[in-house]
Amino acid sequence: MDLRKKLIVKPGSSLKLKDIDASFHGNYKSKEDAIKDLEKNRNSMGELQQKLYGEKKHALLIVLQGIDAAGKDGVCWHVMQSMNPQGTFVKGFKQPTEIEKRHDFLWRIHPFTPGLGQVIVFNRSHYEDVLVVRVHDLVPKEVWSKRYELINDFEKMLSSNNVTILKFFLYITPEEQLKRFRKRLDDPSRQWKISDADYKERAFWDEYTAAYEDMLNKCSTEQAPWYVIPSNHKWFRNVAISQIIADTLTDMHLQLPAPTVDIEEIRKLYHKAKQDKE
Amino acid sequence: MDLRKKLIVKPGSSLKLKDIDASFHGNYKSKEDAIKDLEKNRNSMGELQQKLYGEKKHALLIVLQGIDAAGKDGVCWHVMQSMNPQGTFVKGFKQPTEIEKRHDFLWRIHPFTPGLGQVIVFNRSHYEDVLVVRVHDLVPKEVWSKRYELINDFEKMLSSNNVTILKFFLYITPEEQLKRFRKRLDDPSRQWKISDADYKERAFWDEYTAAYEDMLNKCSTEQAPWYVIPSNHKWFRNVAISQIIADTLTDMHLQLPAPTVDIEEIRKLYHKAKQDKE
Repeated sequence: MDLRKKLIVKPGSSLKLKDIDASFHGNYKSKEDAIKDLEKNRNSMGELQQKLYGEKKHALLIVLQGIDAAGKDGVCWHVMQSMNPQGTFVKGFKQPTEIEKRHDFLWRIHPFTPGLGQVIVFNRSHYEDVLVVRVHDLVPKEVWSKRYELINDFEKMLSSNNVTILKFFLYITPEEQLKRFRKRLDDPSRQWKISDADYKERAFWDEYTAAYEDMLNKCSTEQAPWYVIPSNHKWFRNVAISQIIADTLTDMHLQLPAPTVDIEEIRKLYHKAKQDKE
Repeated sequence: MDLRKKLIVKPGSSLKLKDIDASFHGNYKSKEDAIKDLEKNRNSMGELQQKLYGEKKHALLIVLQGIDAAGKDGVCWHVMQSMNPQGTFVKGFKQPTEIEKRHDFLWRIHPFTPGLGQVIVFNRSHYEDVLVVRVHDLVPKEVWSKRYELINDFEKMLSSNNVTILKFFLYITPEEQLKRFRKRLDDPSRQWKISDADYKERAFWDEYTAAYEDMLNKCSTEQAPWYVIPSNHKWFRNVAISQIIADTLTDMHLQLPAPTVDIEEIRKLYHKAKQDKE
């Protein structure tokens, strides 16, 4: 199954999240099945990222969005650990500071976009400015409603610099979220992740759903598509994302640069030095 | 004379620089005439910038472009010194570094754009990426030719955050440039500003003219207009720019914020403390 084709939000869609099965798991019958492919994908990703790093002709920006407990941190960990930290990093975006608020909403984002040779993962992103900001009326509608177009312009500009953009929306049901919150409550090693806000935000589920749908429908473009990742099964979420990243990197036809020195010459010198020593 | 109306490049123009008189000096008969108005404008600019800084609802970005010796440094000095350095600064853009080159051309620009309450002057700017870069084929035409639209998108985004953008193209003739270069050669205190490149670039005058004309015609927009400043007379250049800045700030109807404390209460306390002491 070509998961890119299956999970992409086609530009100009009018997708409704209720039509999507958050428990979808493709052709995988079990977790064990999926983990084999995840391993394979992670190996490819590691190799391909090294080529991207060496070649310095492409960059990759991965954007993760999803409600609390949807698995953004899990993806950063399970999927991204295959890549060399040299040339890769995860940038999380929290509430903006007072200084950041005095600038346009992309001002704090732009400095962290990847240069050629880099892979950068945004754990939350500029999309918060049409999500939490919209749901809680943090700026007037007149302001946030213009941001979809401004975001598309911005991502077009990035892509004109050979930045490939992959955006993953991790989709879980409210029931699955509740199950995960309960697990956290019972797990002392994860209790630190619990905040009051998590539970309070559940009251805004419908408002978030509307905001997610607009984000997906208005901002899935040729150059920066959104993928909706059914994430009730963590193992499907991980294998799907790793597959899409690996396929995307493969399509770049990355090539390590040719050596800038004469390798044969150096080999001879090394050989000679070794003989002299002996 | 309303210099904004007179000197603006109307959006969608097809202006030719040869139709513009670089020695134009408006209604001013002499340098002395102009200097009186310059002083008046500088006072207004100083007062208005303090209001902008206090109010924090507007920002002002001033972009200066022009050929070598057109007077960009002169404007930074003579015009901008009226403003409080708290809340104002000049950012010059030189050749991009290796790291900067790996990013989109706006990546190094964005962090220096003004936040609400700030006035920032760009001495050269992102427009170099459609000027020197175009004239010297530093990137393929396919790349630079798309930048006009990307620049307009970017400036639209800034203006959506209440950043007012004023762009001044300082226009001098080749004869005036040569005269200024000669003066530099004879002035020991300015010889340090001379570089080989200055003279070499004169060979590309026509190519620069074509590039400037495209920049002016394609990127003068409602929200971020270009002004062509006839700059053969330094005194006209200075008074014209100061007038346009002062008029633009005036139109913002800036208001210092109301005090957040009860001034009368504090006055009473102070008065009482003084009496107790006596």
